[in-house]
Amino acid sequence: MQIPQQDTICAPATSLGGAICLIRVSGPDAITITDRIFTPRTEIPLSERKANTVTFGHIADTTGEIIDEVLVSLFRAPHSYTGEDSTEISCHGSSYIIRRILDLLVEAGCRTANPGEYTQRAFLNGKMDLCQAEAVADLISSTSAATHRMAMNQMRGKFSGELRTLRDRLLHITSLIELELDFSDHEDLEFADRSELQRLTAETVEHISRLLESFRMGNALKNGIPVVIIGETNAGKSTLLNHLLGEERAIVSDIHGTTRDIIEDVVILSGTPFRFIDTAGIRNTTDPIESIGIARTFDKINQAEIILWLLDSTVAKEQFSHLSPRLFSLCKEKSLIVLFNKSDLPFSSVSPEILQELKTLNIPFLFLSAKSGEGISSLTTALLSNVSLSHSPEASVVVNNARHAEALHTALTNLKNVQNAITQGTPGDLIAEDLRNCLFHLSDIMGEVTSNDVLSNIFSHFCIGK
Amino acid sequence: MQIPQQDTICAPATSLGGAICLIRVSGPDAITITDRIFTPRTEIPLSERKANTVTFGHIADTTGEIIDEVLVSLFRAPHSYTGEDSTEISCHGSSYIIRRILDLLVEAGCRTANPGEYTQRAFLNGKMDLCQAEAVADLISSTSAATHRMAMNQMRGKFSGELRTLRDRLLHITSLIELELDFSDHEDLEFADRSELQRLTAETVEHISRLLESFRMGNALKNGIPVVIIGETNAGKSTLLNHLLGEERAIVSDIHGTTRDIIEDVVILSGTPFRFIDTAGIRNTTDPIESIGIARTFDKINQAEIILWLLDSTVAKEQFSHLSPRLFSLCKEKSLIVLFNKSDLPFSSVSPEILQELKTLNIPFLFLSAKSGEGISSLTTALLSNVSLSHSPEASVVVNNARHAEALHTALTNLKNVQNAITQGTPGDLIAEDLRNCLFHLSDIMGEVTSNDVLSNIFSHFCIGK
Repeated sequence: MQIPQQDTICAPATSLGGAICLIRVSGPDAITITDRIFTPRTEIPLSERKANTVTFGHIADTTGEIIDEVLVSLFRAPHSYTGEDSTEISCHGSSYIIRRILDLLVEAGCRTANPGEYTQRAFLNGKMDLCQAEAVADLISSTSAATHRMAMNQMRGKFSGELRTLRDRLLHITSLIELELDFSDHEDLEFADRSELQRLTAETVEHISRLLESFRMGNALKNGIPVVIIGETNAGKSTLLNHLLGEERAIVSDIHGTTRDIIEDVVILSGTPFRFIDTAGIRNTTDPIESIGIARTFDKINQAEIILWLLDSTVAKEQFSHLSPRLFSLCKEKSLIVLFNKSDLPFSSVSPEILQELKTLNIPFLFLSAKSGEGISSLTTALLSNVSLSHSPEASVVVNNARHAEALHTALTNLKNVQNAITQGTPGDLIAEDLRNCLFHLSDIMGEVTSNDVLSNIFSHFCIGK
Repeated sequence: MQIPQQDTICAPATSLGGAICLIRVSGPDAITITDRIFTPRTEIPLSERKANTVTFGHIADTTGEIIDEVLVSLFRAPHSYTGEDSTEISCHGSSYIIRRILDLLVEAGCRTANPGEYTQRAFLNGKMDLCQAEAVADLISSTSAATHRMAMNQMRGKFSGELRTLRDRLLHITSLIELELDFSDHEDLEFADRSELQRLTAETVEHISRLLESFRMGNALKNGIPVVIIGETNAGKSTLLNHLLGEERAIVSDIHGTTRDIIEDVVILSGTPFRFIDTAGIRNTTDPIESIGIARTFDKINQAEIILWLLDSTVAKEQFSHLSPRLFSLCKEKSLIVLFNKSDLPFSSVSPEILQELKTLNIPFLFLSAKSGEGISSLTTALLSNVSLSHSPEASVVVNNARHAEALHTALTNLKNVQNAITQGTPGDLIAEDLRNCLFHLSDIMGEVTSNDVLSNIFSHFCIGK
């Protein structure tokens, strides 16, 4: 479908500011071009060297001025990341040196690579399918065990494996139906046992639905599972938030260069990222301006997976009666956890009636002190169990890409049509069309039928040098 | 003098945010430790592989969970950067992956490397002398052709070569004097011809002085040659500055990730960095508050190498008479360039008398329009010629390190004592002491007699992973 790339590309694969920078060169002339600017210490050119070797030498410009002493790794097609001849130049991480080497490579015949072009070439050369390629970008941006595991499973082909299983089953269904079509004049033949077809289709519908269902969590995990903390202004919301964020800062600060604004409100708890969304405190529900505040808070509840309702234990009775009716009806589809804060203070007004009501409604609750940190670890456990109960990131495959979810959704619609058609006794030739559509969309995820425009769009979101 | 390092160190050598990260492992157990966490695809462990090869495989934790698919480069002592057994793990640039791999390396027996520890080991293992090692840090931070060339020359041993030449000459002088001492009872012998000694010493004094002299420019080049722009408020100072800075932005913006605040006021003109220092506009010299402003401006002149005095051509006569007497006396030791701005406007008041005065004082002047950019290229040429006339960065060796300058300064003092002693006919045994001190300080630059405290201090200013 795709023709192999004829030009040779170059780009830095590491960011500025380190001791070392890696510059990648890939394409049919990668070795020749690198030889033009690189002088190995032992004078044997790269073109005469074995694949998978590292050579020390220097890079000089046309006037003979030495730009840097470098190591060059050599890879030969098809045994490279891209599947093409490739070199990797490991130079000193100076912005001047990097710019000069890239300029020299371009003068020697390279083109500057587009974002994601190395992975795009790996895909076009059959080194990986499209959803594996997409996982590479996710892997690079993964900052937690959960997002890492999703991306790694996908990159190593677990998702592709499931898609292939699905496709094999659909092909089996199709072949049963087509066999029936071929022998349709033999009315006594029952190759395509309708109940067997029905069973296989239902199984496949269930499988695709399960994958689609995992997208909600997969997507949430990518940016951190959204958790809204609500409560009245004096309930201790910001103390709790600071406590949670403070722990995260401690976790990430041992890797230098991590920018704070990215993780500002994301806390990684036992490897799972939670994105804590702040809300304005709720005060008096009769004041019209405050009502707007509450409306906004309720709006944020819709965006969340988990709602933490923080109450001040000393005035819990009032606070509970203020909000509980509206909140409980809003949170029916969500995970609500009720937190009784200031549990270290005397005069708790958490009545047995409140606890009984929560138990009846099957709403989990916890006592904690946001100030001292007591009970925070129970909150962590509750948050994590919430995730693992609904959609475990450890389940083999989690869909985390909107493009995949969309394709799965369309495939599912097609397959449900098939299901209905079988039930209604529709002739096989009409069913085959929907089956083909369903197969098409599964193949689309792996990039087997994907248009060049879509491909370009996918890879344009990669970083440079990958 | 130094015992070889017994432990094995690890650190990332690239900064966060790229597609790929390089993690370096160096030390006697580098290969064994990497083998503990790395599974090559072809199952032959690194310990059984040849040096200078690259191996594909994966890194897994103790539970078997795959952390990343990586390339590992293998180097064996002494043919590595550090001179020790080393591996370089090329993994995906995810903060999570980097942290996990470093954790696994530490669990497997590594210690996290200190800043500069790889280069420190290279020095301790005799792969380079101390001033070559120091040049590595300069090379990494080089952002212009001039700073790059200084660092590259130094790293490749040009400065060390000059130091060795100096040392050989001093040893020759010492041997002449010692020969004289041995035969001091033979009064008729004249091994150490005093005039020959005098000539050799004077030559060496001149050589060290030249090196020391280059430090002023070398140091200025490191941070950009300081250029102060002064002028009255309406002279067009900020327009000129923006014009100069704007060009620089265009130069650096094609390398992504360059932070603006570092180069904010540094302009690289034909490979030479100039640091433009802004000054408050000078208005009325009779106002006491304005006088403080002028005093501050004059203070900045002291820190500069080059002073650009910008005048508004249309009122040049007044502006010239305001400042010229004080300025000319202040700038005697500096390079002053007079710029007549707004040369595109009619009614120039640049009188022949002004131009004559400048010619008499040998002060260069230019006509330009900061607004249209006309004449800016002549300014660039003037700035560059100013540098190349005084201290060319293309001269083989430029001292750019305060430690070296200090050692050279002390060596020079010792040698001048020798010079005086010879003139005064001081006996040879008294001269020998000063010669030994002089030799000591030259050896100190190359790290041959340098204390561990000084070494630690030098390498602590390196970046991690180098």
